[in-house]
Order: sequence, then structure tokens, then C-alpha cells
Amino acid sequence: MEPLSGPAGLINMEPVAVDAMGGDSAPGEIVAGARRAADELGIPVVLVGRPDEMGDTGGLEVIEASEVIPMDAEPGSSVRTMKDSSLVRAAEAVRDGLASAMVSAGNTGAAMGAALLRMGRVRGITRPAIATPIPTPGASPTTLLDSGANAECRPEWLVQFARMGSVYARDRFGIKRPRVGLLSIGEEAGKGNDFTKSAFEKLSDGSWAQDVAADWIGNVEGRDIMTSDVDVVVTDGFTGNVTLKALEGSLRALFGRMLVAIDTDDTSRKAGEMLAPALDSMAQEIHPDSVGGALLLGVRGVCVISHGASRAAAVMNAVRVAREMVNAGMVGHIAATAHS
Amino acid sequence: MEPLSGPAGLINMEPVAVDAMGGDSAPGEIVAGARRAADELGIPVVLVGRPDEMGDTGGLEVIEASEVIPMDAEPGSSVRTMKDSSLVRAAEAVRDGLASAMVSAGNTGAAMGAALLRMGRVRGITRPAIATPIPTPGASPTTLLDSGANAECRPEWLVQFARMGSVYARDRFGIKRPRVGLLSIGEEAGKGNDFTKSAFEKLSDGSWAQDVAADWIGNVEGRDIMTSDVDVVVTDGFTGNVTLKALEGSLRALFGRMLVAIDTDDTSRKAGEMLAPALDSMAQEIHPDSVGGALLLGVRGVCVISHGASRAAAVMNAVRVAREMVNAGMVGHIAATAHS
Repeated sequence: MEPLSGPAGLINMEPVAVDAMGGDSAPGEIVAGARRAADELGIPVVLVGRPDEMGDTGGLEVIEASEVIPMDAEPGSSVRTMKDSSLVRAAEAVRDGLASAMVSAGNTGAAMGAALLRMGRVRGITRPAIATPIPTPGASPTTLLDSGANAECRPEWLVQFARMGSVYARDRFGIKRPRVGLLSIGEEAGKGNDFTKSAFEKLSDGSWAQDVAADWIGNVEGRDIMTSDVDVVVTDGFTGNVTLKALEGSLRALFGRMLVAIDTDDTSRKAGEMLAPALDSMAQEIHPDSVGGALLLGVRGVCVISHGASRAAAVMNAVRVAREMVNAGMVGHIAATAHS
Repeated sequence: MEPLSGPAGLINMEPVAVDAMGGDSAPGEIVAGARRAADELGIPVVLVGRPDEMGDTGGLEVIEASEVIPMDAEPGSSVRTMKDSSLVRAAEAVRDGLASAMVSAGNTGAAMGAALLRMGRVRGITRPAIATPIPTPGASPTTLLDSGANAECRPEWLVQFARMGSVYARDRFGIKRPRVGLLSIGEEAGKGNDFTKSAFEKLSDGSWAQDVAADWIGNVEGRDIMTSDVDVVVTDGFTGNVTLKALEGSLRALFGRMLVAIDTDDTSRKAGEMLAPALDSMAQEIHPDSVGGALLLGVRGVCVISHGASRAAAVMNAVRVAREMVNAGMVGHIAATAHS
């Protein structure tokens, strides 16, 4: 089955391939998450990895793979030499039509490499990019891309990122006309470094925005990301990754500080107990696990890259997102805009 | 009086020059903050600007300046053409020994330009950098530089930033051996883009660290900034500014979400009231105003750049920091390490 050329309306019902061996808590939490996706959400799943290490799979289908790419392995050489690794086999399963999508919480670089090597790029896309949804209180998440696939970018790639990000924001969050901004250090056109000024010029051409029914809103700043003022933020993979991790860090620091605040004295402890449900729902809303992982956009298949620290709930969410993106026909939509 | 060549032990007792006309709430909040610094902290202050617009100055000394550089004016041409602006006059007062330091909440670029033009660079420093203290719950703030002075940097400038940041962290926060990291996208030496890889190599030479009694700890990531694992983070001004504003935005988003959480129902509202003191002290600790503004390092004088949104309390803190850095002899310390 070819995800890009199937007859319209025909939904790929092949299972989502889950790399059982990738992630800090693999395979235990990964298998648990895959089982929950199958049991609670009714999504067909196939586990990829070493069957004898998976524990009780609850009857899930398994694609055997004898090798495991370590979390800290050099990505490029790993995917080229470890052909029987769970990551490479998962990507292969998508290419061969045995799976509709892949999900991994393993080595991010290797997941990208495996997807690129086995699925290939969408025609018209020079480099795939990682799109990460950033939780925005009270609004749809803001999609940040590239959040780490390409440490060096050319300005023209950001136009491709803008196209892909717009498709993704619509397919994933139902945003009809995504507002797309360029991450810079001032809102005026002339603000930024040489790279963003050149990217700004190319993005301002605007024909891409018409193609994907998006609104190009020009430069945005770091403080706009977590607001409802912008839906898609494009940037190079270095700046995107630094920003993503800075946001993660600040949320962690602030939550940590809040736990201190509600444990200062008996009154605050009592108040903390009373607030537990409200704080839990706040944590749920803002926790990266809830949004279900990042997507590698621009490869010929759905590839969800989950946080290395993913536990079962995060894996289940990642499978759900993978399935939704298959159902939405996202890869086909990207192919359509990349060709135009 | 020449800040760099005064006899050792002689403290510059000239007043701190406050740009009364710069900032979103100027001159009202600025004058109020300057008065508080004089009244509550006993720091001598001189206001710079239009006397007839300042309101009641409470008897503070005034240096008259007829022009005001608007917040959104182009910095370079403004400081060159508006020679009787409050910003340029404030910098001049430091140069001429009429003031010991300057503080402005006005146009950041123009404040930099005025300081550079009138005070000049410290010998050995190619480009001044903005050093911003990032609040770190339960620990000393982390100093981020360059957080916006230079959108384009050369790798070797980051070694100068590392020197200046180390001096600043010691003089400002009393950190005996500051741990200095390079902002990148992975901890290993090989991680980053071409720019950071080159900067990493130059920083790894390590003689600078010995000169300023700092520890070079290699690459750090965005999530490390708000932890106690690092004291000084060096980066180019584009990445630094994006990061700084992303952190600001996430803290604002999370605080906003927290206000929603403590206003969901009667129980949470009651709990919110009980928590008010603890949450206030948390907000105080984390609010950028509390840390007292950023410093422009590398010019021949103390120049504090306060947030455009600064109100009286922030201005008072900025004056306090300016005074502390004069007393500590920070500019002389930077000159000493820049020569070495």
C-alpha cells in the first residue's frame, strides 16, 4: 500500500508500528502504552523489536528486529549499519505498507535517519523538519518547526517548513487558516540576523500562503509562541531546538517552584490539597506528554517522535496522533503543497 | 572622574543618571522609581530629561535634555542625530564623570548606541554584550549573554562574552567560580551548528577561564538555563534574545494559566486566597523586575538597561544594581580580564 497514491477516501487501516525498544523506559512503558492504545482507543498496533524482551504484549502483533540503536549512538552510522534495528524495521514496515505510521521514543536523530532512509522524502521537500506542538493555555497548541532536525538551514527551506507546518496545523488541530510567523528578535521586517532577514524576504513572497490557505503574519518573537496570536512558528533547527528546550526548562522550573509555594506552611499545604484537581488539570494541559509527541514532516509516511522520557500515557497519545494523521491524509496534503 | 583609572579603594560617589524619558511608563514611573532609590536606598540619583515633564522630582538633581528618542526609533541614526536626547546626555554624564552609572528603560538599541558612542568600548572587547540575569528558583540567577546586542556574532566574541559574564556573575551574585556553558542543542562537543562548533573550540582553549577564575563546562541546553547547573550561558545575540523572550513568554503563560486554576470554583478561589502570600513571593522571585534589569557589558561605564515595561519598583532595583556594580568596580574588573 502506497500512502501517497491510494484512491481518495480509502483509509490506510494497517497498524501503527511502535518501536518497542526506543526510549528511556523501553520496552516496559512503550509496550504498556501500545497496549493501552489498542485496548482503550481501538487503534491497531504492531510492536517492533526483540519479542523476548517485550514482556506481555497482550496479543499485539510483533515485527521482529534483533538490534537496538542506543539513545546516545551517532544517528547516521547507526541507521546505515544496524539494518535489523527496531527503528529501521519500523520505518521499513511503513515503506512496505505493513504499517500505516511509525512511533518511536528512541534516539531522535536515528528515528529521523531511519524514516528518511527507508520512507524517503516527499518530492519538493529538500529537508524534513521536526514539528513540535507547544501547549498554549486556553488555545490550540502552537506548532514550532524545525525544532531540531536541521542545525543548519538555508533560508528557502523555511518556506517549505511554512507550507508543511500549515498543513499540519490544519490536519492536527483543525485550524482553518493557520497564522504563520517567522521566529525573530523584533516584529519589524528589518529585525533579525542575516539568515532570518533572507528568510523573511522569501516568506514574504506569499504564494506559498495562498497555496496552503495560511496567513503569513511576518516576524514573531519568543514571547509570542505560547500565546494565541500565532499558530505556526518557523525557524532553523538550532534556534528551534534551543527554544523548545528553554520552554521545557522554564515550565519545569516554575512547576518545581510552585510545589515549594504550596508546601511552605500548614495553610499553603491545606490550600495545595484543595487546589490539587485544578493544578492537575493545568499540568495535564501544559505537559508535553499530553500533546503526543513531535512529527517528522516531509518524509513519505507518518513518523511520530516521542520524548525520550515517554511513559505509557505519552506513547498511547503518540499512537493516537499517528493514527489521526494517517486518517487525515496529512502526508498526501504535504505532497500536494510541496508539488505546487 | 575616570571609572577605569581611579585609585584603588576610591569609590565613585557620583549619582546614578536615570533616563527619565525612556520606557512605556515614562516619565511618571521612572521618576517615581528614581525617588524611591534615593529615599529608600539612599543612593544619589540624577534625572536626565525634560524638567517640565517630570512632575515632582522630590528635589532630585536634574540634567536637562530637550529630546526624547522614541521606543521604536531606529537606534543608530537616533543617537547620532539626537545629541540632546536624554539617553545620549545620560551616557555623556557617565563619560564626563558627572554620573557614576546610567539606567534607562527606553529604546534598548539606542541605549546601547548611546553608551557605546559616548563611553566607548573597554580595550580588548570587540563588541559589548547585553547580560541578562534569568531567575532560577532556589538559586542564584543564571546570566545569559549576549541576550540581544549583536544579532550576528563571530565565534571568538563568545570568548569575550565568557570573560565578561564571569566577572559579572562574581561581582553581581558573589559566585566565586562561575560555571560557564555554551548554549547549544546537545551536551556533547560535536553538537550544534557551525557557529557553536567553532565557538566551542575557541572556548575549550580554556586560558580565559583561568584568567577569570571560572569553570568552562562545555555545551549546555535550553533546559539548563533555569537550573542551578550553570551560572553563565554564552550565546550569540539572536539566539540569546529569542531564548530570553521565550522564557518570558512561558512564565507569563504559566502564571496566566495558574490564575485560571485558582479561579475555577469556590474551593479553588478559597485556596487561592490562602496561597496568596506564597504565590506573591514566588512571583516576586521569578519576575524579571526583581532582578533589576540587564547590563551592557564591555563599555567604559555601568549601563543598566531596564525592561521597557518597567514600573517604579523595577527602576529602583535597576538603580540599586547600577550602584552595586559601581561599588564592586565591575568595569575595572572587565578591563583587567579583557587586557589579559
